Amino acid sequence: MNEYMEAALEEAKIAFDLGEVPVGAVVVRGGEIIARAHNMTETIKDPTAHAEVLAIREAARALGGWRLIGCDLYVTMEPCSMCAGAIVWSRVERLFYGARDPKAGAVGSLFDIPGDSRLNHNPEVVVGVMEEECSAIVKDFFRELRIRKR
Amino acid sequence: MNEYMEAALEEAKIAFDLGEVPVGAVVVRGGEIIARAHNMTETIKDPTAHAEVLAIREAARALGGWRLIGCDLYVTMEPCSMCAGAIVWSRVERLFYGARDPKAGAVGSLFDIPGDSRLNHNPEVVVGVMEEECSAIVKDFFRELRIRKR
Repeated sequence: MNEYMEAALEEAKIAFDLGEVPVGAVVVRGGEIIARAHNMTETIKDPTAHAEVLAIREAARALGGWRLIGCDLYVTMEPCSMCAGAIVWSRVERLFYGARDPKAGAVGSLFDIPGDSRLNHNPEVVVGVMEEECSAIVKDFFRELRIRKR
Repeated sequence: MNEYMEAALEEAKIAFDLGEVPVGAVVVRGGEIIARAHNMTETIKDPTAHAEVLAIREAARALGGWRLIGCDLYVTMEPCSMCAGAIVWSRVERLFYGARDPKAGAVGSLFDIPGDSRLNHNPEVVVGVMEEECSAIVKDFFRELRIRKR
């Protein structure tokens, strides 16, 4: 489990170095990482280019279909409503995330989209995997941003 | 207002002919349509390829930045949580939609994401624009699908 979150954290570090909010995600199937991505909203000027959306799209390309049956998604931060919706639509089997996002999180914080039984799919959710590391990189990012802005 | 929803309906018709759930969307800025898209999930095998996400991405490309300041989004169906999240993130100013989606709608039906004051942006929402036409095309689609499946 930590092996995959470490891979997601490596992606978050790439985002950090690009000046993006450092969030990373990987999609795992049968023990193998089939997609990896990091937040790219500023770099490619696309408001939908969150790590989870990019990883899901890459995994769908790798599998040749939009249903990510038997796939687990590891992401360093709690998904927002956009990403939580994408996770439900793509039929991700299990979602593992690191740090909570009290401002926009939609998997327990503001909303609980994957847990809503009115939707047609409810992925299993595991919260707090390598939480400290996943949270630290985001805190570091915003601390540096505040220093640079002064 | 109806002029733009008619353009969104034209997009929905393209989706219908492709065998996609017929939903269409356009982005309008200063009275001009700057992006138009239709649901493409099956055609391009991408679970995130809903009309709204594709239209938002196209509008961001057209504007050269991810903030859709001063932009209105017209969509034939109530956005799901993924699309509602994308609408909030991209700072769409006003959202107009046609038919409600009681199964997955996240703009009044299951959730009200754009209206949630805890999020950092709350687009204005207008519900029920050309509702009858927007609803009819989806009903026709599922009726044909049921007939074909028999």
